[in-house]
Order: sequence, then structure tokens, then C-alpha cells
Amino acid sequence: MEEILKGIEIILPEDSLKEKLEESQKTGKPLVVKLGFDPTAPDLHLGHLITLKKLREFQDLGHEIVLIVGDFTAQIGDPSGKNKTRPPLNKQEIKANAKTYIKQLGKVIDVRKVRVQKNSAWFKKMDLADTLQLMGQYNLGRMLTRDDFANRLKSDSPIAMHEIVYPLLQGHDSLKIEADIEIGGTDQLFNMQVGRHLQEANGQKAQTVLCMPLLRGLDGTKKMSKSLGNYIGLTDEPNDMFGKVMSIPDDLLPEYINLVTNFKKEEKDQMLAQVTSQPLETKKMIAANIVTQLHSEEDAKKAEEYFQNQFQNKDDASKEYKDVNFASLGLGDEVILVDLLVVLNVRESKSAARQLIESGGVQVDGEKVTDPVMKIETGKSEMLIRAGKLNFFRIIFD
Amino acid sequence: MEEILKGIEIILPEDSLKEKLEESQKTGKPLVVKLGFDPTAPDLHLGHLITLKKLREFQDLGHEIVLIVGDFTAQIGDPSGKNKTRPPLNKQEIKANAKTYIKQLGKVIDVRKVRVQKNSAWFKKMDLADTLQLMGQYNLGRMLTRDDFANRLKSDSPIAMHEIVYPLLQGHDSLKIEADIEIGGTDQLFNMQVGRHLQEANGQKAQTVLCMPLLRGLDGTKKMSKSLGNYIGLTDEPNDMFGKVMSIPDDLLPEYINLVTNFKKEEKDQMLAQVTSQPLETKKMIAANIVTQLHSEEDAKKAEEYFQNQFQNKDDASKEYKDVNFASLGLGDEVILVDLLVVLNVRESKSAARQLIESGGVQVDGEKVTDPVMKIETGKSEMLIRAGKLNFFRIIFD
Repeated sequence: MEEILKGIEIILPEDSLKEKLEESQKTGKPLVVKLGFDPTAPDLHLGHLITLKKLREFQDLGHEIVLIVGDFTAQIGDPSGKNKTRPPLNKQEIKANAKTYIKQLGKVIDVRKVRVQKNSAWFKKMDLADTLQLMGQYNLGRMLTRDDFANRLKSDSPIAMHEIVYPLLQGHDSLKIEADIEIGGTDQLFNMQVGRHLQEANGQKAQTVLCMPLLRGLDGTKKMSKSLGNYIGLTDEPNDMFGKVMSIPDDLLPEYINLVTNFKKEEKDQMLAQVTSQPLETKKMIAANIVTQLHSEEDAKKAEEYFQNQFQNKDDASKEYKDVNFASLGLGDEVILVDLLVVLNVRESKSAARQLIESGGVQVDGEKVTDPVMKIETGKSEMLIRAGKLNFFRIIFD
Repeated sequence: MEEILKGIEIILPEDSLKEKLEESQKTGKPLVVKLGFDPTAPDLHLGHLITLKKLREFQDLGHEIVLIVGDFTAQIGDPSGKNKTRPPLNKQEIKANAKTYIKQLGKVIDVRKVRVQKNSAWFKKMDLADTLQLMGQYNLGRMLTRDDFANRLKSDSPIAMHEIVYPLLQGHDSLKIEADIEIGGTDQLFNMQVGRHLQEANGQKAQTVLCMPLLRGLDGTKKMSKSLGNYIGLTDEPNDMFGKVMSIPDDLLPEYINLVTNFKKEEKDQMLAQVTSQPLETKKMIAANIVTQLHSEEDAKKAEEYFQNQFQNKDDASKEYKDVNFASLGLGDEVILVDLLVVLNVRESKSAARQLIESGGVQVDGEKVTDPVMKIETGKSEMLIRAGKLNFFRIIFD
């Protein structure tokens, strides 16, 4: 109970979460905790882990998670036809995306206990009169204070009129499932408050709104998001996941320790004390912890080894690169990777060299290359080649 | 054809009316002329006559008038519940109001040729997805430029969100009936342009928008309207109608001559030339013309006679008021009308004086008084009393 009140960026109204939890404990009636899901964006990343961990805490206390699948608007797409990133999805696509999404949730919460509710159940029955009725319950001026609407109006960027209905639809979902709590990012704060308003206007107790803190992405400054490409996916392979965590800037370590690891409090305190003196070791501990949460301890161990071999040992080996003057090889200008490796005596035959490349054993300038016929660019000044565990070349062009 | 292009305040786009009329003449295909009717306001007044006369001209050229009965939103009323002047109407009320409305139209246009179309025919079939689709076709920023929305937003007056959908619904009506022309007051300019936009967005030729000039009401300054009480109803009795026209300020005469009489051009010119020198005679001609249009020539004649007797003869007689010093009558301070008349020898008996009052034959300060026991206010300086056709007194108090 103490734990569940912690780590939340915004609780609105402030005391209502505590009150509802106590009330539920007294009456034995579980709270309905709403989580909205947009089926056009099924991929979850580490930023979502913060919310999922909080949901797990609710679940562990016996409360009910209701996952609202926003299939109604997803099927419509963008009625103005201007937003190409919102094509209409058909039922099969929505089903597949929901499945993907729930599978990801399953990495943290018990999805068998989650109630999954498509909002088309009520929205497909709504007619024009119902829609006007719903809209009549909300003040336009208030809706226009939502940051993105206000900014776009101010800068004369177009807003198609249907867009301002969507917050009402999201709020209507809360009304339909009689949500006690809605959880989301701070970017959802406005919409979740619309839910509160509609519930109150219809004689329901308004939901408590919980905003979880946002996690910064790999670039170290911007909020982690798929569209910015600075994300670590919840379903990333262990090696990728480990490597990506290792790539975050050091000053993000406290944020990651606090928000996405599941270390005990004392462990966290100890790590926070050592981030500046031992950033690399701390980062490895974070990476291993995250991979353990989302895969397994064994996966975490293997990923750490892989990282050690692929990246960290490479740094050690970089001192042993052998310089080779490209012109001295007498290969002309049109050279492909497999031929270069044979000339360099990495393997004796072309087929053996091809096999090495295709099995992922060759890196060019630190990037794995699996295409044996990749053309060698002779226009640059030099190129680093690592083939297998032992062969390191610095090819120098004129 | 020349005539129909005249007397229109705004034609939008300017040349399109002429083009459409010529096109229709060439192809023999009549134009669809849309007139919207709000069933919550079935009473027409002289200001509407301007539009009706224009519609009559279209009808006389063989074009089709489509009357859109806005029954859909009338049945909803005000979803926000805040506007008490828009209670939801039931089907019977709407039917009755439409009947009343059409009866009034019949005073000017041939209602047998009018196509009456309830817009619930399409709106009751629209669902939430259709509504979002419709809203997606219009830009919010543009909608917010409509005067009343802009002003209310600026002054922080509440606007319920459904309100901004109504212009789209009105525009959608134009789309459904494929209107070539929509006619309305200048206060409808914005909404009629929304119709143009929606028609174009759906591959139709945009309707031509015609705004008819507004007529000022009895007060001489404000637009004639039922809610301001400064109106002459199209179904007012001949005597009332005549009298109300006679009561307009003289400087409105040119406006009334031009907008609501049906004199020939030469007659109008002659009248316009004499408004300053002969305002009373001109006003009578206008009043008679209007009563003739909306009732009959005979009604107009009778109404003029009635006016003459009731009001104008009074003015002539005003020179013959007999001065009476109230104190000299020796009646004290608590006097009622019937006693005063007996003392003044208007009638010999109290019952005869009472009968005269109750039959409407007595005016006090120009106002008919039918209450025999009306107290005489002795606090003012003087009081004019007219009793029957012959007795005129100026009672002078101390």
C-alpha cells in the first residue's frame, strides 16, 4: 500500500488515490484501473515499463485492470485524409495489433486477469443525436486550452474539427467502464481529466488520474518514443536490449535506476551513490536488470557476455589492427567484400570467406555486414575490417 | 431575369447567380433554391417578406424552392441544457409549427409548388463514424472565425461543443438536396458558406449564397425580430398591421418602400421623392400596400378607415381639448375614472359612463382605458382625456 503511492508524477486529485485504496480495502471491492491502448501503435518500449510496473502493483493488490482497445477510431483512420500516419485499420489488423500489445503487457503484468474491452462496443451504437448530446456536455473554450490545440490555433496550423471530439470519446470510455483510476503518461493528462468531467456530469464519481513520469531515450534528451527512434523495445532481443542500455549517456543513469529497474531500495541507493565513480559497472547492472525483467536472468548473462565480446573486447583489440595499403593489393576499383577477405588471407577459399560473412562474423567500420558481395567503397581514406575473432585490418586508401 | 438580380445584399460568388440562371435557361433545368426553416421559430414578420418576395421571383421563373425543415436539431433541443429557449420539440409540435410556417409562406409564394424536406431524413441515419467524417471535412480555426463563436471565446462566454457542429449540419443539408442556391439573412452568411465548402469537398458544384437585406423594426434602429418585439407579423390582423406601419419613424420610409412594398419602379421613385414633404401620406400608401399584399385590397381600405377614426381623428381633435382645472371639480384626491366622466358631463349616469369605458370609447393620455375604476393620478401636471367621439378634456392639476 505504501509502495503503490510512490513514483507517480501526478495524482489528481492528490489525496483521492489513497482514499480509494483505503475504501476498497474496507469494502473488499476491487478498483477498476483503466489503461487505454491505441491499436495504431502496438509497439511498447522501456518508457511504458514505468506504467506497466505500476499496473502490476495494482494487480498484486487485487485490483482490476481494464484495457480499453481504441478500435473504433482506429477503424476510421483520419477522416480529413491529411494524416498519412493514421490509415484506417481493418478488424484483422486491429486484432493482430491488440494481440502483439497484450503479449508485451504479459512481460510485466498478468494478462489473464486483464479485462480487454473494445470501445467499438459502445461507439458503433452511437448516432448523431448521441454525439451531439456528448459534445453538449463539454465547453469548447476549455477543450481549446489543450496544449496541442492551443498551439496549433495560435500558429494557424490546421485542426480538422473531428480531432476535438477524440478527447470526449476517450473520456466516454471511462464513463462506460466506470473507471476508478486511469493511468497514462503526462501527455494524457488533459484527456484523462475530460473523463473526470464526463463521469461527474453523469452522476459518477470521477476517476483518479495518474500520470507516470516520462523516460528519456537513447539520445539522452528527448522523451523515449518510437517515432523519434530513440527507444528500447520491450520485445527487443536480449543482446540488442543490453547493448542499447549500454549506449545511454551516463547522466541518464539515476533516471533509469529509479524508473525502470526493480532493484530493492537499498540496492538503488548504493547504485545511485556510485554512478559517477563507476558508470560502466552501474550501466551493466542496469542493463542486466532490465533484460532479466523482460527476458530472463540467463538471457541477461548471455547478453552481457555477448556485449563483452562484441563491443568491449573490440576496444581492446583496436590497438592490434594491421595497416594494409589498398593499392598494394592490386585489386583495381571494383572489389567486393568476399574477394577482399580472400586476398587478405582471412580464409583460404571464397566459399569459406562467404560463410564467415553470412554467419555474421565480419564487421566493417564496427557494423556487422552479412552481404558477401558488398562493394568496397574506395573513395574514403580508410576502413576498419574485423573478420572472425582474430583478424583486424585497417585498409588505407590513397 | 433582370429583376431577379436586384435587391440582393450579398451574392457569393458575385457572378454565379447570373451564370446559373443563364445555364438553367439554356438547359431548361430548373435551379434548386434552398430555404432553411427552424421549427422552433415558426412566426414570420415583415423582415422575412424581403426573402419571400425574392423566392416568388424564382418561382415565377420556374425554379424549384426546397424548404428544409430543421426538425432533427429541434427534436434534440439544447443538449447542454443551458439554453432554456431551445426546449426539445416533439414531432407533433414540429408538424404544427411547419404547418404554421408554410401557411405564412403561402401569403407570398405558391406553397403547392414548394418541396418540403425534413432533414431528419438523413440525420437520423448518421452514426458517430459519419459524424466524425463530416467534421473531418472542416477546419476548426475557420469555424471559430464565425462572429458569434469568436466573440464568445474572446469574452470567455461558454460555448458547448455541439454548437460548432450545427453549421456543418446546415451545410450538409445543401449537399443532400444538391442546392444551386441558398437564400437567407446576412446573419446566415457564414453557415451558407459552410454549405459551399462541403459541396465542393464532395465533388458538387458549390451553391450560390444570397443574403437579403435586413429590415429595421418599429423602433427604427434595430433589425426587426420577434425577440426584440419590434416586429410586424405576417399574420397580424389588417388593422394592427396598418397601425404598426403607421408607427414607424419617418426616416425608415425609403427602406420600407424599397424592401417590402410591391409598387412599380416609377411609383416607388415618386414616393421616395415625397417622403420628406408628405411623410404621413406616404406612410399610409406603404401601410395600405403591405396590407394588400398580405391580406387584400378591401382589408387595406377598411384598415385605413379604422386607423383614421381611431388615431388620426384624435390628432385633429387635439386642438379642441377643453381645459379643466381639476381642483375646480371639487372631487378630492381619491377619484376614479367613471366618476370623473360623470362630473365632466360626458354621460348623465354612472352606468352609462361605465359602459362607454368598457366598450373602449375612452382614452387617457392617448391610451385606451377599459377599467372604470382606474384611479386618477393627481400627482402629474395634466392629463388628456378623450371620451367618445366628441369629448376632449385637458385636466390640469395644481
